[in-house]
Amino acid sequence: FFAQWTYVMDLIQEFGLEVYTQYTTGKKVHHVGGPHAKVRTSSTSIPALSTLVLLDLSQLVWKIDRLSSTVSVEDPMKTPNAQELDSMTLHSYIEKHAWTEEMKEEIGVCSRVVFGMEPNQMSFLYFLMYAAAAGGVLCLLESTPGSAQEFRVKGGTQQLSERLAQQIGWESVRLGKAVTAIWQDAEQANVMTATHSYLCRAVIVTCPPHLAAKIHYQPALPIQREHLTQNMPVGHLMKFVITYQMAFWREKGFSGEIVARPSAECPLSVTFDGTSPSGSAALVGFISGVQAYDWSSRELSERRDAVILSLVKYLGEEAASYIHYEEKDWALEEYSGGCPVNVMAPGLLTYYHPSLCTPCGRIHWAGTETATQWCGYMDGAIQSGQRAALEVLARLCPFTLTQEEQEAVQAAQNQNHESGPCQHIPSTSHLRRALILTTLIMATAVLLAQPQLCRDWIGQARQVVLRRFALW
Amino acid sequence: FFAQWTYVMDLIQEFGLEVYTQYTTGKKVHHVGGPHAKVRTSSTSIPALSTLVLLDLSQLVWKIDRLSSTVSVEDPMKTPNAQELDSMTLHSYIEKHAWTEEMKEEIGVCSRVVFGMEPNQMSFLYFLMYAAAAGGVLCLLESTPGSAQEFRVKGGTQQLSERLAQQIGWESVRLGKAVTAIWQDAEQANVMTATHSYLCRAVIVTCPPHLAAKIHYQPALPIQREHLTQNMPVGHLMKFVITYQMAFWREKGFSGEIVARPSAECPLSVTFDGTSPSGSAALVGFISGVQAYDWSSRELSERRDAVILSLVKYLGEEAASYIHYEEKDWALEEYSGGCPVNVMAPGLLTYYHPSLCTPCGRIHWAGTETATQWCGYMDGAIQSGQRAALEVLARLCPFTLTQEEQEAVQAAQNQNHESGPCQHIPSTSHLRRALILTTLIMATAVLLAQPQLCRDWIGQARQVVLRRFALW
Repeated sequence: FFAQWTYVMDLIQEFGLEVYTQYTTGKKVHHVGGPHAKVRTSSTSIPALSTLVLLDLSQLVWKIDRLSSTVSVEDPMKTPNAQELDSMTLHSYIEKHAWTEEMKEEIGVCSRVVFGMEPNQMSFLYFLMYAAAAGGVLCLLESTPGSAQEFRVKGGTQQLSERLAQQIGWESVRLGKAVTAIWQDAEQANVMTATHSYLCRAVIVTCPPHLAAKIHYQPALPIQREHLTQNMPVGHLMKFVITYQMAFWREKGFSGEIVARPSAECPLSVTFDGTSPSGSAALVGFISGVQAYDWSSRELSERRDAVILSLVKYLGEEAASYIHYEEKDWALEEYSGGCPVNVMAPGLLTYYHPSLCTPCGRIHWAGTETATQWCGYMDGAIQSGQRAALEVLARLCPFTLTQEEQEAVQAAQNQNHESGPCQHIPSTSHLRRALILTTLIMATAVLLAQPQLCRDWIGQARQVVLRRFALW
Repeated sequence: FFAQWTYVMDLIQEFGLEVYTQYTTGKKVHHVGGPHAKVRTSSTSIPALSTLVLLDLSQLVWKIDRLSSTVSVEDPMKTPNAQELDSMTLHSYIEKHAWTEEMKEEIGVCSRVVFGMEPNQMSFLYFLMYAAAAGGVLCLLESTPGSAQEFRVKGGTQQLSERLAQQIGWESVRLGKAVTAIWQDAEQANVMTATHSYLCRAVIVTCPPHLAAKIHYQPALPIQREHLTQNMPVGHLMKFVITYQMAFWREKGFSGEIVARPSAECPLSVTFDGTSPSGSAALVGFISGVQAYDWSSRELSERRDAVILSLVKYLGEEAASYIHYEEKDWALEEYSGGCPVNVMAPGLLTYYHPSLCTPCGRIHWAGTETATQWCGYMDGAIQSGQRAALEVLARLCPFTLTQEEQEAVQAAQNQNHESGPCQHIPSTSHLRRALILTTLIMATAVLLAQPQLCRDWIGQARQVVLRRFALW
């Protein structure tokens, strides 16, 4: 497994859960450029893009990867040119640096499926940090055998939460009790719901920032913290699962992967094979970003029929004979509000990033948005929970911590106070730049002569990105 | 008076309050370019900028004004090229269109004093809409005799709130009771605080969006509404008032106006004469945006000493002999959270603007952020209150409304459902563009020959913008 996925994989092993590989064999469907554009399929691992678009993709990935490698995830404002990068949206960067309209559209699709959000809603520096937290854009895109992205969890990932609840005992868990206020003084914290209150020595708030902002705090939190949580938009993804008698697409040579751009007719942005290990055939997909915005307020039947119609268009008539259509819109749940993650609008990292993890009195902050590894993913959520738990232990019973753990807590706290060292900024000499540029030019020349090479590589990359949805 | 200021001026007249003119005679101090840049004063109404910077200012104002005039305040997404304009920050636009570094700095100063926010924190389309709601950038900047910006209210503007409370009776007002939840069903709404609840037939929520987002709603609000209120950052302005035995600056030929850029030494971004009608000498000023962020967490004495030191530097030794230094940081109040207004981050208008005013069941939305005239100002707050009150009357007792009022409510509701007509988009013919461009080029030539002309005009404009703070 990738080293980065250690947190979630450790937990999966600890609980004795099993993983299985995502089905990816066969043709992928790729449809961008509007409803009247040609639907392309590819029996290699990528859609047939023109050489120019492939080159555009490759120069853009190279540029973004280079920038991303200069980002310190722990302290993004130490990134060279940080303020400038945080002052623009991802959209603005792409507008300036993409050569082709097709590429701009592709980035829209990526933003939608990864963040549930449009490229104009997030800071470009935040996007770079997010990529860096996954090990860099290229690292995130790479497809190596045994990578954690290849796996789904048998029986579903909710088992992780259930096992954790069992460990601490269900009697210690309160469900359906929204926290409305947290008051604290020198002695203790008081966590209040509409009907109950709980006295605590320490509190760990793990909900996403926009929900943490719904809590009334006394004394009021530092304004930096409030401004941060009040301005981290959450994405909008709706998930659907459609079951079939048999995986007809496999027989027709399709992998089940479809990538589509929003249009009046097509709600879905991505699908893939969701067949269970026991062989129950299913397609899984997402309606995301602007598509989710357009389609969420319509009737389920209308949405379902449009999804099925799109599947018929892309995979054939057999798609119409489904057993069951099930969907989930997290945005409709008051205490989810969206999916999969909160991002930062421009200008937030610049001023407010240190407040993301800095404890406020007895209140500590966790949640995947605070992670420095796979921020936004389950792995990051677990990392952040362990970090916050260590903070609390260091406060309440430091003697239970190992030397190493105490040092980790200390290091994180130094980081929060902006005194931590910056280890992630490589010095890019002119020589190195020239070397990279020369390599790129040579590679470009080779690719112009042999576009298939580039296609294979990009296709593998795309495949892995899409497969990461399997872990949700 | 300007027609735009009708709402607040009507109320001032209704309550028999008096206004008096802001003192603006004498030299203005202008200090941008960092702590070591030259401090410039100008006995005309503007700082001595180089001809190039003046031209830059004039081309930038012309461009922004032209764009702003195409914005429909009621439905900003009907603006030509709306999505593109909403996809970039104000910073990104300025980076692209300003010629000089000095001009970029000037825009930073403007953004800070008008919004309490940096140019990288707001959508450029939102900025244009804000300007359009004030009648266009040029209209906002123009200085005509009798313009409402010239006045302060004798005794302070809080008298407006007090008189309104008297009108409905203080016994109907609950202070210090934060609303934590609003539940509603087919019969009624239940407004809850930590200790009480109130049954209502209709509710008007007037608090700023980031505080409306703190309320727990049942049933949950539409996701578009939640996403909107969860992502409208509020500015950060700290106000200070320093009283003196006498207005020494007047005797030295200063107006009391200072405009400064943030630096480690200087916390203030703007000051002006705050002497009362009875002659009690005072200077009033603001610490804003990034300056407020840097200085808010320090000790009052440190901030006060730095402010006084800056005043000594700009106005002379006499500034050190003050009677009293008083300040107000609205960000420290849990139920203000900032000042003066909430703005929109990029991508919000694109998707969520219609939710700003659309009632949710029995809940209606007011507040200056929902105004279509002087959005962000007291005038806008009053307009929005009247609009929301009419909505409620139209629902509960429509027979009390005049024909005209009923039509106004109907028109606003149509607008909310995106079916309203767009009246604000002029068709800019190529001929007109050519004419404007020719005029600009000719004006530029004249100004290059006689820079003083331009300085006078820009100076007057600047003066008026700064004087608008007098109404706070």
